[in-house]
Amino acid sequence: MTLQSRIWTPVDFDADGSQSDCFRLPHSTDLSAYGWIPIPVFCLKNGPGPTALLISGTHGDEYEGQVALLNLARSLDCADIRGRVIIVPALNYPAVISGRRVSPLDEGNLNRMFPGNALGTPSQMIAHYVSEVLIPMANFVVDLHSGGRSLHYVQSSLVRPGRDEGQRQALFQMMEVFGAPISFVSNGAGGGGMTTLASAAEERNILALTTELGGGATLSSAGAALAENGLKRLLKHFGVTPELLVEPAQPTRIMMVAGRDSFVYSHSRGIFEPFAELGDEVRADDEAGLIHPVEWPYREPQLVRFASSGLVACRRAPSLAEPGDCLFKLMVPLEQL
Amino acid sequence: MTLQSRIWTPVDFDADGSQSDCFRLPHSTDLSAYGWIPIPVFCLKNGPGPTALLISGTHGDEYEGQVALLNLARSLDCADIRGRVIIVPALNYPAVISGRRVSPLDEGNLNRMFPGNALGTPSQMIAHYVSEVLIPMANFVVDLHSGGRSLHYVQSSLVRPGRDEGQRQALFQMMEVFGAPISFVSNGAGGGGMTTLASAAEERNILALTTELGGGATLSSAGAALAENGLKRLLKHFGVTPELLVEPAQPTRIMMVAGRDSFVYSHSRGIFEPFAELGDEVRADDEAGLIHPVEWPYREPQLVRFASSGLVACRRAPSLAEPGDCLFKLMVPLEQL
Amino acid sequence: MTLQSRIWTPVDFDADGSQSDCFRLPHSTDLSAYGWIPIPVFCLKNGPGPTALLISGTHGDEYEGQVALLNLARSLDCADIRGRVIIVPALNYPAVISGRRVSPLDEGNLNRMFPGNALGTPSQMIAHYVSEVLIPMANFVVDLHSGGRSLHYVQSSLVRPGRDEGQRQALFQMMEVFGAPISFVSNGAGGGGMTTLASAAEERNILALTTELGGGATLSSAGAALAENGLKRLLKHFGVTPELLVEPAQPTRIMMVAGRDSFVYSHSRGIFEPFAELGDEVRADDEAGLIHPVEWPYREPQLVRFASSGLVACRRAPSLAEPGDCLFKLMVPLEQL
Amino acid sequence: MTLQSRIWTPVDFDADGSQSDCFRLPHSTDLSAYGWIPIPVFCLKNGPGPTALLISGTHGDEYEGQVALLNLARSLDCADIRGRVIIVPALNYPAVISGRRVSPLDEGNLNRMFPGNALGTPSQMIAHYVSEVLIPMANFVVDLHSGGRSLHYVQSSLVRPGRDEGQRQALFQMMEVFGAPISFVSNGAGGGGMTTLASAAEERNILALTTELGGGATLSSAGAALAENGLKRLLKHFGVTPELLVEPAQPTRIMMVAGRDSFVYSHSRGIFEPFAELGDEVRADDEAGLIHPVEWPYREPQLVRFASSGLVACRRAPSLAEPGDCLFKLMVPLEQL
Amino acid sequence: MTLQSRIWTPVDFDADGSQSDCFRLPHSTDLSAYGWIPIPVFCLKNGPGPTALLISGTHGDEYEGQVALLNLARSLDCADIRGRVIIVPALNYPAVISGRRVSPLDEGNLNRMFPGNALGTPSQMIAHYVSEVLIPMANFVVDLHSGGRSLHYVQSSLVRPGRDEGQRQALFQMMEVFGAPISFVSNGAGGGGMTTLASAAEERNILALTTELGGGATLSSAGAALAENGLKRLLKHFGVTPELLVEPAQPTRIMMVAGRDSFVYSHSRGIFEPFAELGDEVRADDEAGLIHPVEWPYREPQLVRFASSGLVACRRAPSLAEPGDCLFKLMVPLEQL
Amino acid sequence: MTLQSRIWTPVDFDADGSQSDCFRLPHSTDLSAYGWIPIPVFCLKNGPGPTALLISGTHGDEYEGQVALLNLARSLDCADIRGRVIIVPALNYPAVISGRRVSPLDEGNLNRMFPGNALGTPSQMIAHYVSEVLIPMANFVVDLHSGGRSLHYVQSSLVRPGRDEGQRQALFQMMEVFGAPISFVSNGAGGGGMTTLASAAEERNILALTTELGGGATLSSAGAALAENGLKRLLKHFGVTPELLVEPAQPTRIMMVAGRDSFVYSHSRGIFEPFAELGDEVRADDEAGLIHPVEWPYREPQLVRFASSGLVACRRAPSLAEPGDCLFKLMVPLEQL
Repeated sequence: MTLQSRIWTPVDFDADGSQSDCFRLPHSTDLSAYGWIPIPVFCLKNGPGPTALLISGTHGDEYEGQVALLNLARSLDCADIRGRVIIVPALNYPAVISGRRVSPLDEGNLNRMFPGNALGTPSQMIAHYVSEVLIPMANFVVDLHSGGRSLHYVQSSLVRPGRDEGQRQALFQMMEVFGAPISFVSNGAGGGGMTTLASAAEERNILALTTELGGGATLSSAGAALAENGLKRLLKHFGVTPELLVEPAQPTRIMMVAGRDSFVYSHSRGIFEPFAELGDEVRADDEAGLIHPVEWPYREPQLVRFASSGLVACRRAPSLAEPGDCLFKLMVPLEQL
Repeated sequence: MTLQSRIWTPVDFDADGSQSDCFRLPHSTDLSAYGWIPIPVFCLKNGPGPTALLISGTHGDEYEGQVALLNLARSLDCADIRGRVIIVPALNYPAVISGRRVSPLDEGNLNRMFPGNALGTPSQMIAHYVSEVLIPMANFVVDLHSGGRSLHYVQSSLVRPGRDEGQRQALFQMMEVFGAPISFVSNGAGGGGMTTLASAAEERNILALTTELGGGATLSSAGAALAENGLKRLLKHFGVTPELLVEPAQPTRIMMVAGRDSFVYSHSRGIFEPFAELGDEVRADDEAGLIHPVEWPYREPQLVRFASSGLVACRRAPSLAEPGDCLFKLMVPLEQL
Repeated sequence: MTLQSRIWTPVDFDADGSQSDCFRLPHSTDLSAYGWIPIPVFCLKNGPGPTALLISGTHGDEYEGQVALLNLARSLDCADIRGRVIIVPALNYPAVISGRRVSPLDEGNLNRMFPGNALGTPSQMIAHYVSEVLIPMANFVVDLHSGGRSLHYVQSSLVRPGRDEGQRQALFQMMEVFGAPISFVSNGAGGGGMTTLASAAEERNILALTTELGGGATLSSAGAALAENGLKRLLKHFGVTPELLVEPAQPTRIMMVAGRDSFVYSHSRGIFEPFAELGDEVRADDEAGLIHPVEWPYREPQLVRFASSGLVACRRAPSLAEPGDCLFKLMVPLEQL
Repeated sequence: MTLQSRIWTPVDFDADGSQSDCFRLPHSTDLSAYGWIPIPVFCLKNGPGPTALLISGTHGDEYEGQVALLNLARSLDCADIRGRVIIVPALNYPAVISGRRVSPLDEGNLNRMFPGNALGTPSQMIAHYVSEVLIPMANFVVDLHSGGRSLHYVQSSLVRPGRDEGQRQALFQMMEVFGAPISFVSNGAGGGGMTTLASAAEERNILALTTELGGGATLSSAGAALAENGLKRLLKHFGVTPELLVEPAQPTRIMMVAGRDSFVYSHSRGIFEPFAELGDEVRADDEAGLIHPVEWPYREPQLVRFASSGLVACRRAPSLAEPGDCLFKLMVPLEQL
Repeated sequence: MTLQSRIWTPVDFDADGSQSDCFRLPHSTDLSAYGWIPIPVFCLKNGPGPTALLISGTHGDEYEGQVALLNLARSLDCADIRGRVIIVPALNYPAVISGRRVSPLDEGNLNRMFPGNALGTPSQMIAHYVSEVLIPMANFVVDLHSGGRSLHYVQSSLVRPGRDEGQRQALFQMMEVFGAPISFVSNGAGGGGMTTLASAAEERNILALTTELGGGATLSSAGAALAENGLKRLLKHFGVTPELLVEPAQPTRIMMVAGRDSFVYSHSRGIFEPFAELGDEVRADDEAGLIHPVEWPYREPQLVRFASSGLVACRRAPSLAEPGDCLFKLMVPLEQL
Repeated sequence: MTLQSRIWTPVDFDADGSQSDCFRLPHSTDLSAYGWIPIPVFCLKNGPGPTALLISGTHGDEYEGQVALLNLARSLDCADIRGRVIIVPALNYPAVISGRRVSPLDEGNLNRMFPGNALGTPSQMIAHYVSEVLIPMANFVVDLHSGGRSLHYVQSSLVRPGRDEGQRQALFQMMEVFGAPISFVSNGAGGGGMTTLASAAEERNILALTTELGGGATLSSAGAALAENGLKRLLKHFGVTPELLVEPAQPTRIMMVAGRDSFVYSHSRGIFEPFAELGDEVRADDEAGLIHPVEWPYREPQLVRFASSGLVACRRAPSLAEPGDCLFKLMVPLEQL
């Protein structure tokens, strides 16, 4: 038996018109015995039609999606809609207001907590509510990510492989419509497994697109613009805003992450001096960078190398690195494997 | 299969006489590998008869019940007892000694953790022990609450609706015997659901009364006196202390919380200036108060209004408020609904 | 040589009209290398005339003054002014926004840091700016205090003895005009010495009134109303708003704190059960209350007694007490000494 | 269905030769979105033969085992091995690098978390990996403990009772081969129950020996030497290093902990002045020590006594004690019971 | 009388040859009663000649200078030197190893603490040692800064105005030799006043150059390359390494910060969406960006504008902004004023 | 002009008889606006005669002196006294109750803060009060130290060189009377300089003896016994308790610390494996121990050596070491230098 979520909202998702309020996550503390955490939500509905669920702030320190959704929520006209648009710009609200990837309440990485727990920690309760309440209302989901404080990322979109060929084609089409320079496919083997928001959508047979749009906890104006335009194209593509004027999508390059050799990690503590930039093509055994020891600077820095060839898709942002920190992730064309 | 609690105590609950010691909750830390957390307990027994389980400190910052139970434990004479009185004045001991609602060890709100977990966090272990060991020993339970640091509360007692008409009548009678000015019924829909101590008692068909006796993390002498007198009346009522001299109960007013419109919340950060006092009768759409912005005081304060009519049963204590903080809760006469 | 403050503001204190902005206290942090702390200020000026400097938020958890000054800043009409009113509603802004008595940046109790330090911690810089910049602009100063989180206080106003008889009479007149039920005189021997805002004003021969208007980090509506009315009376009394309609002052009782025997302290840790209420008249050796040990509740509670006779002017608010915590402070009529 | 661990390692446990790298525990944080926690591991393999799994750092502040395993890993020659030696010197790595008993990431006491959880906190993930991956590779396990920061311990080894007589004899033989002055048998009733690493091994029918080799978060050279020699004797005993030169074992004394009366606890806060040393033989009702109150030193110190007779096997190390802290643990000869 | 520094080092600054060790700053803690903080230092000396003092890590989260100095310390050949090079790559070592601008030990912003205090906090002791011991050994000083975590900066160098025309010309020549795209002059009026390392050098009539080379707590490879080449040019220019092969300097543009209107600040909390990039030329009243409220996203974002015209020299890096955070700093050509 | 201390006490140091109460250090916090920190003090006086000032708890984690003074305070009979004994067993009370070397309120190492500051942090206020109030009342001072959590120490006493030959002889005689196995002379060049309690006494020409009696934050019974017996001998020696029965002193060995080469420090992070025990005689260049790297255990451990010859007087207690931690301190016979 599935437990019922304790999260509630005055928003009526069946009502036509534009509503904005918040999801209310009960959270009892010393300073607020009967209080709740407000998670902002916009619902724009106009008659029958498909439902788009647009999310950002799954990680609190990723900003392109948040800005795109806030701008979209203010600019969308209900009259242009045929169906429903649900916008959740700050899903892990406690993480968003503290500018952190993970929640300060439970140190939870929300995108590794699906399908969640109705009686768990705040992040687990959010994951459960998304899985049990929000995703079932949707025809498609977009979850807007960026690299966050610790990573710089090439602009890209990402889907799971799909449960069958039809779903796979629909997902690939979403990537083309979204129009990021790079698109890639991942089954979560690199880390997320079946604990991501996208996998929760797949479980319920709902199409889901994820993005990476910048990083370093700073806003890329180009990334925010891509997000806003890509979202509009998807809304039109799915018939939610059939008449909306949109910019045409640029062609995208379909790629993939080819296993653990695609990653370069630090094995010591120090200052990371990288030898490759985002978007560079590198080859196996190329020098990737140095880790300069700061505690004992009289030693030689540690040289790290790439273990495979590919395009530099993401790079560590903070210079100070610890053992186990990811320095680079590479991608290769999808057909190459 | 139910796991066995790791909590133990040298108290022999089957022995006649007065014992005082503690429950010992194993908790291994850097500074105490083999240590335990002491949860004080008094057991006064004199031959056969019913068992009263009297609890306070479920939340650590609620004091009327704690003072009443400490005074009762010292003043009760074993010779007056026919049966058994178990007194646990500081149930969530880590919260009590730090003066906090929730436990500093796991940030746990104990009254949302029932029926608990034998191998969980300290608060979960306490909830499990109460559910599996203490409640089954009792004929009736009183769990003494107040508003705590964040709320001021009218003096009141509270029961669940009961599983059948007989239980319901027995519970209502307990409220009359306890004799708070206000008594109310709640099925936990407002937040606690089946995760409260009272619901754990109901699960096992044990009568349970909860109280609210003051608030603001400060002691109401009147609230403590009501608690002590009300407890004595209940002990006599159930035949635990058949000859005890008690003050007669004042009449009580039976009320209820009539749904989500009974609550007023803050939607911004600022200083809360309330326009109604505890016990006031207010009407829907009355002005409830202002939230003065402190970060940008040049703006107008935000006006909040009551969404329904009723009696002001609780009000936020700290002036500084955040979005989601409860400012007021109203009650209405039970028959009114 | 006096160092110059690094605090600056765009407010032009010589310009007529109503301005609201903030003092900018440079504070360089990891997240804001070139940032400053904003301390809100209102300046209302209309031609020549005396200057009133009205301050609250010296301690961040005292609210009656903050609410009164915010309401006054919005309600005062520049046209009614002959001279200048400077309102600083949140003087120790970092303490105010965190709802604390002391600053979270330096744990500083601002009212023990005068005359401050231009290159010190944030609280020291504020004290220095008030001493060197704000007070010299004023003809009189009102610094609005309450008991804060740890104390409940009778409504009262407070002055230093004055440097000569003329000043003393002017100060006593301010107390009468302000119109609190109780007024008292203190030379700071009880703790503050020459480190308070009032002593900094006295150093520069500026009249200064301090108030106590409630406590417990909760707002007393009566205290806020007294503050607002008393301030208006003072503005009119000093000719700043000569035509303002004001409510007449109630008579006040002139009292004093008669030395160290006026204070009752806790000498152990436990729950404080008080035996006297604010405003009660008590006698030396009366029982003042009990400290119930929570860590070892099988012991008798510790009885504390009053060491002298007088009126209960302040009482500890939080029930949990530690050794050294003040439980009561008494006052006696000024002539009694 | 058992969930698969997310921990991975480049070490190939089936390959001959000497490898050293780390287990990689995925842990996503603000500063390392794709990062992992490195848990060092050495694998020395030479052809077919039994597998020894040697572990320390289950608690991070216990050093004799860590030093012994680091020295052993550097000194063992692969050519001397017939089978495989897996060395994990810092099992709860986050606890080890912070010098703490429990993990700073989840406050987890790893030796109370078996069999663990593949999707839980870092400590739960480690317990799961040991249970599901490491122990199944082993023929025998040694988990090297000491008293840690809070306890001083006599040098000893420890086994569970065994699931049958054959296993029991094999375990007793391991204690004799290891050669600590004292050996004892425990079914975990004293606290660990079925949540220890040794019980996880027993669940899978793998022989497991635990040790206690010193304490106080300081290194006993004698304890480290015993660990290194005892491990070599066990490796030879099980045929892993059949030709290794080892020092002969000293005779050991087989003892046990005879129930809750073997423990002495503090019931108050203060400075612990012990009256018995490690290894002393004490008798029931002997004075065990004083707890001097530091907050109220004018009171008499609290005298604590032994509740049973036996040998002082462990004693609290830090002088400052809290209620519930274990002051002494006694052992008695196994036959005595 | 000047107090003597408690900092000491085994490095002999009068000895020829290459030495590397650390300054030892006594710091007594719970875990290290007699310990010191190690501040790495390299001294390369070869006969008579001028002394260069090269410093980075005054702020711990600025990396271009740290990497350049570590590379320079390893690559410089003592035989090429005529005089002495003292390299201190991690001046505020506690800040450097924690990757923070300010010291975790005293929250000290080292570049606002000169001339320091021999008996003060660790940061004050460092400032004192630099002022009293290191600067007096030098003929010129370079203090390598970048924007750090909170700022992105155009590549630039910076000098104080100089005490006379000769010094001013020597300082301008240093900027030309260093060869950053932009050079600017500041008297510290914008914040530092006489509390910076450069002002401490000026006090002793020593030439000092400061740089800004990137920001965002991430390493700019171009910034690090400029630092290394610029330093080599300066060493050659001052005759310390007369024969060193260096790349020629690019021309630099001499600019200045033209007062408080050059800065744009946030006045609310939210996500900063900038409308200008580093290096852009903007005009007074241009839109500078939006602050999107995250706590109440239904409101319009706050629009901020530039108050003057100029080149965007620095921009806030983290998207999340608070009131008082600097969003932009502009520069104008030096002759323009 | 010297500022007056804000610390006060009800103890009357001129009254005959036995008094015990506390010094009251005003400290205003969120939870205690008018509170003070209690520093326990015993005063035993009987007619005219010399005054002994006996102190422990200057560092909170050193216990032999605290236990000795608590036992002495309870066992001394006023009738045996000719003069006065002032006992302060927990001088830095906030450090003592938290079991830490330094104060949790200001991270202050009290024995580096003399002569203190009347208006400074709590530790500075204590130092000032000792210098200005307590020491001037005394004829001799004993300040009882041990190694604390981070050091193990041989039992020893310590004096400054004395201001002249007479004082030097008196101080040496105190060491002989105290009777520790080792006595040594230090001018504070090793770290404390003129900032210790002993130097504050010397400034006022008062004889002062310091001790080291154990370490590791654990109590040495032998050290506590030496303290108690040594103090009694000193009380008798100075005529404070002329008839007290005392055990004769053992002969002491007069030694000294011969400069910076007497210290061995760690230069890396890791587990410290020492090769010498307290009291061992070592020679320059002997192996002192290993630092095993825990973050990268595949590397060789770092070998450290003694830089001079001598007796091992103190050794680091915690095994985990950081760069800059003191591992060993050596002493040599006084005549040897």
